[in-house]
Amino acid sequence: MDTSKPRSGAPNEFLAQMSYESRAKIAIERCRKLATLSEDAGGTRRTFLSPPMRDCHREIVGWLAPLGVQVRIDAAGNLRVLYAGAERDPPRLLIGSHLDTVPNAGAFDGILGVVLGVALLESLAGQQLPFAIELLGFSEEEGVRFGAPFIGSRALVGRLDAELLSRKDAKGTSVRQAIEDYGLDPGEIPSAAVTGDELGYLEFHIEQGPVLDEMNRALGVVQTIAGQSRLEFVFAGSTNHAGTTPMNLRRDAMAGAAEWIGAVEREAHRVPELVATVGSLAAKPGAVNVIAGEAQATLDVRHGSDEARQAAVEVLAATAHAIAARRGLSVRHAVLLNQPSVAMDPALARRAEDAIRCAGCDPHRMVSGAGHDAMILAEKIPAALIFLRTPGGVSHDPGETVRVEDVAKAIEAGSHLLAQLAVSPTVQRRTNLA
Amino acid sequence: MDTSKPRSGAPNEFLAQMSYESRAKIAIERCRKLATLSEDAGGTRRTFLSPPMRDCHREIVGWLAPLGVQVRIDAAGNLRVLYAGAERDPPRLLIGSHLDTVPNAGAFDGILGVVLGVALLESLAGQQLPFAIELLGFSEEEGVRFGAPFIGSRALVGRLDAELLSRKDAKGTSVRQAIEDYGLDPGEIPSAAVTGDELGYLEFHIEQGPVLDEMNRALGVVQTIAGQSRLEFVFAGSTNHAGTTPMNLRRDAMAGAAEWIGAVEREAHRVPELVATVGSLAAKPGAVNVIAGEAQATLDVRHGSDEARQAAVEVLAATAHAIAARRGLSVRHAVLLNQPSVAMDPALARRAEDAIRCAGCDPHRMVSGAGHDAMILAEKIPAALIFLRTPGGVSHDPGETVRVEDVAKAIEAGSHLLAQLAVSPTVQRRTNLA
Repeated sequence: MDTSKPRSGAPNEFLAQMSYESRAKIAIERCRKLATLSEDAGGTRRTFLSPPMRDCHREIVGWLAPLGVQVRIDAAGNLRVLYAGAERDPPRLLIGSHLDTVPNAGAFDGILGVVLGVALLESLAGQQLPFAIELLGFSEEEGVRFGAPFIGSRALVGRLDAELLSRKDAKGTSVRQAIEDYGLDPGEIPSAAVTGDELGYLEFHIEQGPVLDEMNRALGVVQTIAGQSRLEFVFAGSTNHAGTTPMNLRRDAMAGAAEWIGAVEREAHRVPELVATVGSLAAKPGAVNVIAGEAQATLDVRHGSDEARQAAVEVLAATAHAIAARRGLSVRHAVLLNQPSVAMDPALARRAEDAIRCAGCDPHRMVSGAGHDAMILAEKIPAALIFLRTPGGVSHDPGETVRVEDVAKAIEAGSHLLAQLAVSPTVQRRTNLA
Repeated sequence: MDTSKPRSGAPNEFLAQMSYESRAKIAIERCRKLATLSEDAGGTRRTFLSPPMRDCHREIVGWLAPLGVQVRIDAAGNLRVLYAGAERDPPRLLIGSHLDTVPNAGAFDGILGVVLGVALLESLAGQQLPFAIELLGFSEEEGVRFGAPFIGSRALVGRLDAELLSRKDAKGTSVRQAIEDYGLDPGEIPSAAVTGDELGYLEFHIEQGPVLDEMNRALGVVQTIAGQSRLEFVFAGSTNHAGTTPMNLRRDAMAGAAEWIGAVEREAHRVPELVATVGSLAAKPGAVNVIAGEAQATLDVRHGSDEARQAAVEVLAATAHAIAARRGLSVRHAVLLNQPSVAMDPALARRAEDAIRCAGCDPHRMVSGAGHDAMILAEKIPAALIFLRTPGGVSHDPGETVRVEDVAKAIEAGSHLLAQLAVSPTVQRRTNLA
């Protein structure tokens, strides 16, 4: 696909004159339009290289047509749009997010970051910068179809490997097969990778949490993406009859697990910025009239500091064992995930903060409790992640929203950031203009 | 079936000379033999009128052959064995328990009560009493096949009604159809009922709890079968991302339910003889990385006193609402079962205690936390329930056992009870001998 066209004349003048608010309204409308491109009739669900993903690409390419960009779908299914720089072979700034969704999704998670990239290209109104901009619409971030997240961005850092390619979905189709079925060539995946010479990666994403909304701020700049531990705890006691076993002769695994859940909550309240969650508890046999002999609980622990997270995991494991011992239960636990925190690029984050201030907002420095594509790109190039307020913290739900004024501020801040980068000595040194 | 034979000669003399311990060993062997008659290859499972129930009837009838008894299967599938009294049309004492089992059952739950009835008839060695004895092997007590318990004993009190008859099992077969398939006539169910003139109903059953074992006693006499409340509580909060939602902005339904489970346990420890159990907890969506927006918990509450049970239910419901209110959650609860306690016949219980003392044991007066057929029979006739120690309280499990010496004491006590009844003025007044 190549939508190259002369970059001058009426459309660009029109684009140049639009207010940020108008651009924001268009961006929100576009997100809502993409939300209708779904595998499910009743709601939004668009997983890795599913048929509606093709419609999604087509729709976005349609918006980009006036801008004279080069468009391709790389071998990992990522939409890649090149907005050329003022000179040949300039350094490149990446802007993007993901185009896939969870089941019963909202309209903005991921999508908004791509749509804001389109808005930023439009706001340039044909102006060429000393660097090229590559807009990225990642094929997969949520991990829904194959139970493994970040398939799209992993290709950019050379980590879409044989193991991941052979992973299968619920119907037995592998990632590799899905790529071929979409008409792409898995053999070309290496050419999807970044060189490492890129100026950086910029991602706008809804916060998907309540922090900015509670603080009444429009935008936040992520300093660190929190490390995450996932564990499983199995408390074991004695399955007994709920009617015939006096309280003092019970070894109730459910009661032990419940006491521990309380301790998890207290520890997370005690340690600043720690979050710890027991989201699932299964009792065996799980009958109304039977004392549970076993209770299996999950634990999710996150913190910006890996040391603080590890310390919390150790405290919570020790607490589980102490509770079990006092109750005559046993407990075993297993670590399912131990993912270190990832720092965003401090220099690019500071630039983002400056740009947000230029847009008249006070940026909130924050830790992201959730993983994002920026975390993957950060392995190879400087990455920055800007959060937009998520009203009520509601996400992964059709009720997910954004405010027009916040989206307008994001576009304004993004425009300032591009302008600042264009005149920065660092970028100047890297261009043929220098 | 009629196995009537002259009741004299060698077999009876042999039977009369056996020790209680030898009888106990035979009884245990018989229970183990019946445990092999199963729907499942790997363990014992014998539900209402399943094919192995026919083998079970055949086996028991074989043991009874030397005793000259009349045998029939009533229209509810109950095995009914009549050991005649010394005169025509004497009053009748019922002895029995159930022959069905749970899946993966032990060998003694229910079965032992029937086998002990056989042992008691054998120990009479042909001697006729002023009353007849009807040995009952109930077709259904556990509620496994149709999700409704006591099908066998309900027929004896006229409560095997149209609603129960139309209940269906997992394969869509109704109780009525199962009865017909077994070659029985549902139209004859009314003739399975007791007249109400019976002397009483005596049931031996394993305790299925740890109380007698902890007290190191062989036998207990149940005074009351505890009333039972079953409730369901649904705590509702907000489903949120486990990584992006700070602790102070959560409305975690799981954490609320866990706090309440602790309160349930404390209340049950506080109130003497109360048992309260949360055996099942389901969190929604139930994912490791999602704060549960809903947690559904069951509650089972039992006590010998209906007032104490109702008071506890009210306290636990109020506690749930207080916890929910403090946490910004909502909670709703529903009462699924509110079954009053059932008193055993005080006079028959005292006779049972006297008989146990004659056997050299100290009977423990106790509340049964579980329901038994005696509870159903008590609606129409005096009922007594004698518990045998259950080592470790292990039941509904292949590891379920009994001690030979306890079974011997049960047979000895049962023999004393028959002998005492035979000379009691009450019985004498009711017989033609009086």
